[in-house]
Amino acid sequence: MTTRQWVYRFGGGSAEGSADMKNLLGGKGANLAEMSSLGLPVPPGFTITTELCTAYYDAGEIYPEELSNHVENALAFIEENVGAKFGDPRDPLLISVRSGARVSMPGMMDTVLNLGLNDITVKGLAAKSGDARFAWDSYRRFLQMYGDVVLGVEHDNFEEIIDTQKMMKGAALDTDLGADDWKAVVTGFKERIEDETGNPFPQDPREQLWGAVTAVFGSWQNDRANTYRRLHNIPEDWGTAVNVQAMVFGNMGDDCATGVAFTRDPSDGRNAFYGEYLVNAQGEDVVAGIRTPQHLTVSGKEEHGSDLPAMEEVMPEVFQQLNDVRLKLEKHYRDMQDIEFTVQQNKLWMLQTRSGKRTAKAALKIACDMVDEGLINQKEAISRVDPESLDQLLHPTLDPNATRDLLTRGLPASPGAASGTVVFSSDEAESRTADGEKVILVRIETSPEDIHGMHAAEGILTSRGGMTSHAAVVARGMGRPCVSGAGDLRIDYETQTLTVTGRQISAGDVLTIDGSSGEVMIGEVPTLHPELSGDFATLMAWVDEVRDLKVRTNAENPFDAKTAVDFGAEGIGLCRTEHMFFDAERIVAVREMILAQDEEGRRKALDKILPMQRQDFIELFRIMAGKPVTIRLLDPPLHEFLPHTSEEMQQVAMASGVSVEDLRVRAVELAEANPMLGHRGCRLGVTYPEITEMQARAIFEAAVEASKYADAPVEPEVMIPLVSDKMEFDLLRERIDEVAATVFQETGSEVQYLVGTMIELPRAALCAGEIAEGAEFFSFGTNDLTQTTFGLSRDDTGGLLKEYERRGIFETDPFVTIDVGGVGELVKIGADRGRKTRPGIKLGICGEHGGDPTSVNFCADIGLDYVSCSPFRVPIAKLAAAQAALRLRG
Amino acid sequence: MTTRQWVYRFGGGSAEGSADMKNLLGGKGANLAEMSSLGLPVPPGFTITTELCTAYYDAGEIYPEELSNHVENALAFIEENVGAKFGDPRDPLLISVRSGARVSMPGMMDTVLNLGLNDITVKGLAAKSGDARFAWDSYRRFLQMYGDVVLGVEHDNFEEIIDTQKMMKGAALDTDLGADDWKAVVTGFKERIEDETGNPFPQDPREQLWGAVTAVFGSWQNDRANTYRRLHNIPEDWGTAVNVQAMVFGNMGDDCATGVAFTRDPSDGRNAFYGEYLVNAQGEDVVAGIRTPQHLTVSGKEEHGSDLPAMEEVMPEVFQQLNDVRLKLEKHYRDMQDIEFTVQQNKLWMLQTRSGKRTAKAALKIACDMVDEGLINQKEAISRVDPESLDQLLHPTLDPNATRDLLTRGLPASPGAASGTVVFSSDEAESRTADGEKVILVRIETSPEDIHGMHAAEGILTSRGGMTSHAAVVARGMGRPCVSGAGDLRIDYETQTLTVTGRQISAGDVLTIDGSSGEVMIGEVPTLHPELSGDFATLMAWVDEVRDLKVRTNAENPFDAKTAVDFGAEGIGLCRTEHMFFDAERIVAVREMILAQDEEGRRKALDKILPMQRQDFIELFRIMAGKPVTIRLLDPPLHEFLPHTSEEMQQVAMASGVSVEDLRVRAVELAEANPMLGHRGCRLGVTYPEITEMQARAIFEAAVEASKYADAPVEPEVMIPLVSDKMEFDLLRERIDEVAATVFQETGSEVQYLVGTMIELPRAALCAGEIAEGAEFFSFGTNDLTQTTFGLSRDDTGGLLKEYERRGIFETDPFVTIDVGGVGELVKIGADRGRKTRPGIKLGICGEHGGDPTSVNFCADIGLDYVSCSPFRVPIAKLAAAQAALRLRG
Repeated sequence: MTTRQWVYRFGGGSAEGSADMKNLLGGKGANLAEMSSLGLPVPPGFTITTELCTAYYDAGEIYPEELSNHVENALAFIEENVGAKFGDPRDPLLISVRSGARVSMPGMMDTVLNLGLNDITVKGLAAKSGDARFAWDSYRRFLQMYGDVVLGVEHDNFEEIIDTQKMMKGAALDTDLGADDWKAVVTGFKERIEDETGNPFPQDPREQLWGAVTAVFGSWQNDRANTYRRLHNIPEDWGTAVNVQAMVFGNMGDDCATGVAFTRDPSDGRNAFYGEYLVNAQGEDVVAGIRTPQHLTVSGKEEHGSDLPAMEEVMPEVFQQLNDVRLKLEKHYRDMQDIEFTVQQNKLWMLQTRSGKRTAKAALKIACDMVDEGLINQKEAISRVDPESLDQLLHPTLDPNATRDLLTRGLPASPGAASGTVVFSSDEAESRTADGEKVILVRIETSPEDIHGMHAAEGILTSRGGMTSHAAVVARGMGRPCVSGAGDLRIDYETQTLTVTGRQISAGDVLTIDGSSGEVMIGEVPTLHPELSGDFATLMAWVDEVRDLKVRTNAENPFDAKTAVDFGAEGIGLCRTEHMFFDAERIVAVREMILAQDEEGRRKALDKILPMQRQDFIELFRIMAGKPVTIRLLDPPLHEFLPHTSEEMQQVAMASGVSVEDLRVRAVELAEANPMLGHRGCRLGVTYPEITEMQARAIFEAAVEASKYADAPVEPEVMIPLVSDKMEFDLLRERIDEVAATVFQETGSEVQYLVGTMIELPRAALCAGEIAEGAEFFSFGTNDLTQTTFGLSRDDTGGLLKEYERRGIFETDPFVTIDVGGVGELVKIGADRGRKTRPGIKLGICGEHGGDPTSVNFCADIGLDYVSCSPFRVPIAKLAAAQAALRLRG
Repeated sequence: MTTRQWVYRFGGGSAEGSADMKNLLGGKGANLAEMSSLGLPVPPGFTITTELCTAYYDAGEIYPEELSNHVENALAFIEENVGAKFGDPRDPLLISVRSGARVSMPGMMDTVLNLGLNDITVKGLAAKSGDARFAWDSYRRFLQMYGDVVLGVEHDNFEEIIDTQKMMKGAALDTDLGADDWKAVVTGFKERIEDETGNPFPQDPREQLWGAVTAVFGSWQNDRANTYRRLHNIPEDWGTAVNVQAMVFGNMGDDCATGVAFTRDPSDGRNAFYGEYLVNAQGEDVVAGIRTPQHLTVSGKEEHGSDLPAMEEVMPEVFQQLNDVRLKLEKHYRDMQDIEFTVQQNKLWMLQTRSGKRTAKAALKIACDMVDEGLINQKEAISRVDPESLDQLLHPTLDPNATRDLLTRGLPASPGAASGTVVFSSDEAESRTADGEKVILVRIETSPEDIHGMHAAEGILTSRGGMTSHAAVVARGMGRPCVSGAGDLRIDYETQTLTVTGRQISAGDVLTIDGSSGEVMIGEVPTLHPELSGDFATLMAWVDEVRDLKVRTNAENPFDAKTAVDFGAEGIGLCRTEHMFFDAERIVAVREMILAQDEEGRRKALDKILPMQRQDFIELFRIMAGKPVTIRLLDPPLHEFLPHTSEEMQQVAMASGVSVEDLRVRAVELAEANPMLGHRGCRLGVTYPEITEMQARAIFEAAVEASKYADAPVEPEVMIPLVSDKMEFDLLRERIDEVAATVFQETGSEVQYLVGTMIELPRAALCAGEIAEGAEFFSFGTNDLTQTTFGLSRDDTGGLLKEYERRGIFETDPFVTIDVGGVGELVKIGADRGRKTRPGIKLGICGEHGGDPTSVNFCADIGLDYVSCSPFRVPIAKLAAAQAALRLRG
């Protein structure tokens, strides 16, 4: 009977596994095998496969019979390679046991070192190393780790015994304890283990080994690991591997060391060897932070102003070996590596290599440099940069070296850092900015009437509202830093102050906010400004060559539109005309329109709005000449535009000649229990056709006008929102076409245009085949589609969503990353049915998901033509689109 | 080349067509052919097919070349049969031209009589009939009809000329005019036609014929017909047929007559010949209502107290022939017929037969009688009764003979008639009813706090709210008559009065409402009470034998549950536990629960609610023993239970020890912008598990308790509302199962139960496959599903829906009849995916659609197991289910 190979050996210049066997050997095991095959100095060892883990659980936590033979043979291989025997009283082989899943997973058993020591072999180790303190220290370390992670004895137990020993000896540090002290500690440890577990500590090295292996496999199914897997969608049957490896010691004397390094600088990406080491230490000592690690290189030491000697100076030969390893690994892996090493008596041993984590800046530089160096090609460079991380590069950041006086923390609602004087109203924000001042707008929450203040301010701070609150969404759209929902803030508009736990800030004081971290600081903290040329420009040029998805922007005003074009936007995917209605000059006319008793009254008010709306469109068309501009007709329910305060009521009453009392009655009439599901979108156009007519006229007159001056064709795309049925669409399209024909006749010139719809209701997706008979494009409005598919309002369930994420019910906020299983299926249904009716129908997505890399990926999968996102996310969407294109081409 | 047969002849005891060719010949043509074949006396004629209509339009309004030959041949057939020639100056054949589509359609051209008359043939007719007055009268009738419907001359023109002639002659009635008068009128008509159309009236009979035929086909595409077709989903390519038939005259003297009849009494279904006739008249005279029609039978005459002689007396022989025809037609068609006949000089001619319209009561009696008579079988009887019409039979109706003083009209929100003294508050309704008084509860609108008042009242009248307002929905559920949205009412709670256009009603006055018509009357109008035995019981027994769909009811209280069982409900499909929360005794504890600061506080309040909720369930379980009872956990957002008025606030503040100020703060905290999409349903259970635990405990303790006394097993089905994701369901199911296990252990007895979910969100339907892993049943909550699929709130868009229906965008209100294209597809997806995961999963539907016949039909199509509806709609749903089963079996 043939059985599977449960055990893979490595070491001594060869290996049974390789780096591409991560699924079977786990990340750590695969890379140990790879380094071995490369001829790098890797302590010999073997990996028990992830398949064994699965088989073990499938069989009811029983190992296959043949496993112990496989392990024995592999152990013999290590013994032969090292030249020492496991359990040999004179020269014992010591081993480490480590877990290693495909992806690293918190909550699992990590590491047991020095396994193989017992009351007898410890003496052999002492004799062989000539260092009794080292031997007893190693034994106590083993007892401590094994007791904790394998036998489940709380680590306090062990620390308490060490502390007692130190007190008895009047010792301050571990290093003050000698061989006898550690021997006494060992005795204490063994007693405590027996007390706590009811069994003596296992002296048999093989029992120790199987105990550790079983503990690793057991930890795959503990509560923390299960929760983590559920939250991160990691299948249970991936299993974990176990790595068993000969020990090497960095703590056998001053010719020993241990360290971690990156093959390049992970903070800025420079091609400089970067790392730290400790002489005479084990790996855990580096992590524990008791001793200050030293730099590897002289330049590193100088750069960080350290006065401890660099490895380059202390162990020049070993350093040279390490540097050779570094170059070999980079050439082989063609990526920056994060490595661990140990030097035992001047001999270098490599314990780990893996791709290193890096900042966005570093990722960009490394990717570009490696193309220059011929290590990778442009396509690989594209796939090396995390799109989301670009966000860091597009906004000002706080100088990391500056001191900060942290006031409080809110939600990181819109990235970037900004400083300014505190103002509490949008009008003041505008007037102070006009005087050349930089301001931070502080509000309990913002509403559409704050748009001008938000535009004027350097940054926005609110005490209420989540990541998708008005403040957050609008600020992201504008690229303004925003901290929202800083719940500790007590804002008092009357006294013009804000208070946090006793500290009071008044209007005129200076604050700094960091919308990337959610931090709010007192005073001005210096910021660093983004550099959009250089590597960034290089990468984006490569990105533009490979991606298939077009990237447009959501923009209503010339400033945002220009910003987006600078970032490479290929058109406007969503111009929300209602944003144009809130302008102080027009809101009165808009309110007059809403309050009109009849069509005639409405038309009179609409005539006042027409020229303003037309002017907006002319500017947008000129900025976007040669690129499509999708203009969405009025979407929100009318009551959103009604005056709220008594003052506003008075103002509108005077302007419109309607009494305040009538105004109030009308407001009550228009009020809705669930406005999101109310009289809005195309329903307004169906019931008040004159609104649609005015907007269509503004669009077409503007298109004709802009065409006169533009050096490329103007491409208006009229978008009808909230359609649920083909007939609604057809009715409004007919009206729009009529207006277009009239305008073209009046002006004597024609402009090509499209009429399409937002697919933002489940029914629209299901009936997309019929709707596409008349619609020339679809833009999937996944914000609203998510709300209706889940029956979940963004405005009301911010707290609930957090709770759901915490409990692992939702993996991610479905308003941030598209819910592929539900909303995504509807988008796919809509796209498929639309294309079936009208092959080649233009398909896009607008709203928050358009700038989310995972969602962009999904859009590429289902073959949409474009995504549209806020200006500052255009580069992110482009990079994500390029990565998706590369992935889809295989 | 073979061409299609465009023309089908009938008459003379045979026919080329038959009754089953309605699609080709239209309803009228097919039945004329059928009667001919039966040997009944039908004036000979022919039908131009509906296919010709389609071919005519397809060819750009051009007739196929061969058509004129076909028509000439058919005309020759008529001539031969009648023995007169078309256009013969001495003995002209006169014909009628009538439209006849598959279904009768308002707005289309109807009839032209006496075609073939002109200035010459009119003289031949005069000579042949020996009655010049008859001849000129016939000619003027022809001119009038042809001028109006074929030439488009407004009918006022003709009436004006007749009136002038009458004035000149001092004549009061048409019958006072003689031959010369009609001759003068004819001259006037012809002049006016030429004035209006610019062309002389066509004298050529063949030109007249083609003009009339083309007018019929043309009217298939006029605006009114197109609108009607769009509203009723009638495909354009059905086309209309044209019937050309030899004229017979009921107005040639006293041996002539014309009449209409039903083969049974259409108002009560008795097997008695019922009809009216006029001596010496044309059909239009019967309709015009100038002369009082006479009864056919002596018994009919006596029954209606008429002193005009019956046909049975005046023309006994012809009557006997007609009665023979009646019996023959019933035997042949096996259904009550609506017939038209003419007697020309003592010879009977049949002009039309079709199934007759009838009241619900008559439909029921005829169906049952015909089974007794052996004419039809039980299955046919089932298909003969319109399910919706049963509603008339289940509620009290106004005595049709009673006089009424109509006050105003509202919406027919819940059927049935009721009288009582007016009260303006629910508390008063309750207290007055307790004193033995019958009351009508009058409110501007109702809220959940009016439940007790609505229960106490005989009927409910509101001035605001549509067919799906709170008042309407709750009243229908309770079977209380309700008129809602009577917008003319001015209700003044302070003065305790209501006013309509100057008439004032005070508290204590008596009103009668008719919830089937929407009428509101002053004073008491006597009502007739429903009879649920007899034919009704017979039919329902047959229905129960054939249907596959089970029918359950939506009920929360013992009264409704018992009512539903009396109507044959097979369980409870939806028990909305929140309805139990509004009871005056418990609302305080409920509010305490909501206001609690922490879990402990909530648990304390929940402990008070537990015994009350348990008691409710015990009663329901006992009434429904042996039948499943689906209990839905708390669904609406918590803020719905908060106190609204200051008085209520005070009351809760006192009971809970929380200040009114804190109460207001909490109310603001809980307020939601879109509560329909807010923190409700299973989301409450996820965040406040203790509520779910209390409800589960109440259910299982009640089930155990009720099992002790019930003579059949108690079958609780716990339903988790508003699930959007498998994990939400699993989380709550786990909790419910734990409580069940605990209760069973505590009590030492077990009850079988199921746990399932409502599929009421698009995402739940899409993810039904995963949800079904844990859910044992699905109940499709199509109210909420319709809201989210359309993005349309029932509360906010009543007016909009009406507007949409008016414009033909929605064929029917999607909250009344399920939207098959959108919501229906999601239900089907949910059912299919659910069954794929869990074959045999129990599937049902609850909510308003469960009692709508068209929707029930859909449920049968997709193979659901049951529907659930309000108690009074149980018989309707059962009948619809039986009809669907018969249809599906072919």
